[in-house]
Amino acid sequence: MQERPIITLTSDFGPGPYVGVMKGVILGLCPQATLVDLDHSLASQDVLAGALTLEQALGVFPPGTVHLAVVDPGVGTERRALAVAGAGDLWVGPDNGIFTPVFLADPAAKAYEITDQSLFRDPVSATFHGRDVFAPVAAALALGRDPATLGPLVSDPMRLDWPRPRREGEALVGQVLMADRFGNLISNLPQAEVGAFLKDRQALISLAGGAVKGISRAYGQKEPGQLLALFNSQGRLELALSQGSFLERLGLKPGNERGLEVRVEAQ
Amino acid sequence: MQERPIITLTSDFGPGPYVGVMKGVILGLCPQATLVDLDHSLASQDVLAGALTLEQALGVFPPGTVHLAVVDPGVGTERRALAVAGAGDLWVGPDNGIFTPVFLADPAAKAYEITDQSLFRDPVSATFHGRDVFAPVAAALALGRDPATLGPLVSDPMRLDWPRPRREGEALVGQVLMADRFGNLISNLPQAEVGAFLKDRQALISLAGGAVKGISRAYGQKEPGQLLALFNSQGRLELALSQGSFLERLGLKPGNERGLEVRVEAQ
Amino acid sequence: MQERPIITLTSDFGPGPYVGVMKGVILGLCPQATLVDLDHSLASQDVLAGALTLEQALGVFPPGTVHLAVVDPGVGTERRALAVAGAGDLWVGPDNGIFTPVFLADPAAKAYEITDQSLFRDPVSATFHGRDVFAPVAAALALGRDPATLGPLVSDPMRLDWPRPRREGEALVGQVLMADRFGNLISNLPQAEVGAFLKDRQALISLAGGAVKGISRAYGQKEPGQLLALFNSQGRLELALSQGSFLERLGLKPGNERGLEVRVEAQ
Repeated sequence: MQERPIITLTSDFGPGPYVGVMKGVILGLCPQATLVDLDHSLASQDVLAGALTLEQALGVFPPGTVHLAVVDPGVGTERRALAVAGAGDLWVGPDNGIFTPVFLADPAAKAYEITDQSLFRDPVSATFHGRDVFAPVAAALALGRDPATLGPLVSDPMRLDWPRPRREGEALVGQVLMADRFGNLISNLPQAEVGAFLKDRQALISLAGGAVKGISRAYGQKEPGQLLALFNSQGRLELALSQGSFLERLGLKPGNERGLEVRVEAQ
Repeated sequence: MQERPIITLTSDFGPGPYVGVMKGVILGLCPQATLVDLDHSLASQDVLAGALTLEQALGVFPPGTVHLAVVDPGVGTERRALAVAGAGDLWVGPDNGIFTPVFLADPAAKAYEITDQSLFRDPVSATFHGRDVFAPVAAALALGRDPATLGPLVSDPMRLDWPRPRREGEALVGQVLMADRFGNLISNLPQAEVGAFLKDRQALISLAGGAVKGISRAYGQKEPGQLLALFNSQGRLELALSQGSFLERLGLKPGNERGLEVRVEAQ
Repeated sequence: MQERPIITLTSDFGPGPYVGVMKGVILGLCPQATLVDLDHSLASQDVLAGALTLEQALGVFPPGTVHLAVVDPGVGTERRALAVAGAGDLWVGPDNGIFTPVFLADPAAKAYEITDQSLFRDPVSATFHGRDVFAPVAAALALGRDPATLGPLVSDPMRLDWPRPRREGEALVGQVLMADRFGNLISNLPQAEVGAFLKDRQALISLAGGAVKGISRAYGQKEPGQLLALFNSQGRLELALSQGSFLERLGLKPGNERGLEVRVEAQ
């Protein structure tokens, strides 16, 4: 057990008291926990958005950090509750694919179905397992509970169809995963894969009718309003408007950018 | 005094530095406090929304938690400042009805007017008692100060008109208190009262021209887009659209749902 | 080194995981830190908004608090990274003027360019110095590192053109700095300067075609819907609509209020 265990929280709860209520339950069981919000503004029931958020936490927090993630359209149905040990950390939430990036990052990750109901709040509501199931389990893990004692090993945890880049003739084709707050569009194209494809050639990157030559090192390298491509802080190809919002320029509402094709060609 | 006292914060301050400023004042006086935000996105000066938020915290945090609540249209006028001991916790804020759920949950709750100005920041501004009055008092309570020493007992703390369900012919009639982030409409109809009314009969629940038969156990029990009723995590009747926003379906702006009549009939 | 050092965080990151990621980096280096968010909803790349936020923190937190501020349009370019010791606290962020209020409040403040790269995450991304540079430096300062050991003293840190009131004939003329969440308009007119100008005369304050006589002590002193002027919790002249949003009344979008002329005359 760590002296000051860290528990992160991710949800689609938005503003409102639900996040604070989960924290109250956790602190009642583990008062020494340090609580860190990752994101609670996820689009309602958008499990992929939750997974992309958790991916950002990989390797960033001290080993053993507990990550509580509640995007849970199946709450109250038969979907399993999971505790996952993987990538150096512990992960708690519904079995709906939200932990896909953990399984991708760490093939040795182990998932356990949480069947030990003695930890749960009594009664368990049908609508708020974040409070009644996942918060107390996260507290127990922060207190040193071995996830393998929570229930049986799960051999087939749900995984999302993780969008992978593909070759298409002379092009490397990926897609937009999401926009960040600045309207920058983040693709699923990893730096290593783009580098291996381009070798020493210049890149021509196109998206939604726009195109940009070359990959910049920083946002500030282009004049305001110009389109640029760069590898972002996660090592992914990102399309941005210098000092502007590319999402807005495209006339897209947040959320509608997902899946836009990003095409990398070499010159 | 607790080793790691918890202080929750609720306000209508929205984004911006005011919440952080209150935290700075608290941590200057009680550096060991663990601070938890409940909700700062309340509609401006919506005291009932503040009260409904505090109601969610009842019985969730460890006993002795201090709850600081600042929705304060009367700041700078003669409205009293209160410290309340009730429902196992301590509550600090303006005397405008925001603590109504504490008084309803615990008839033995005691309210004290905060008249000991030695705790206040000097000078006290006319516009930000959250920083100058309530934050230092919350810190003092977290440090173990007895609320009865802050000022005289108040026999008539303000209470909001708490909307209660009523019988109307063969129907039990309540109303919508608020929508949550998902667009689910939460009513003032408690599970126990609806159960006593229905006995073993099937429910027909109507709201704003829509109607639904029966009460589901979970959101996932109906097909996407279907209306459903269930008892939510607070034991209240809630009207929801499976995997959608009922608020949006009704074409209502957030805030305009309050007071909509919810009618329960038996079949 | 403080037992429980405080680190505040300010950024234009909005919702999303970036703030949580910075916290993960900090807690990995300084697990005993207490983290406080000031504001992450700043308009994208609005350095003045960041500076106004930091100004609110002056003198509020316990001495020695570390303030991490990342509004950083120049990330990845040659702009310097700064650690500033001033006004009793420590400040970390880009050299773009965001620390102007620290330099104004404390002429003896010292700024150091952060050149000791041994603290940085490796590699340093071109787009997220909040994570790779500023978070680890903030943690080091919280652990007691002397800012003077981070790099050379900077004699010319960037300063924003801080809007100052001016005399214009018989009037004292200032401007609106920003609106708060309630739609109150906060000017750059300090209480002391307005007091010295008015002496014992009554004020006539005009803005955008509206005018108000006299300066109220509190929002509640006028009838709902009436315009009022008061000195706010920072000692600045503020124009407000009693129980309403002045910003909305003026038909302005948030952000467009900045620079509106506020004219004080004496009667």
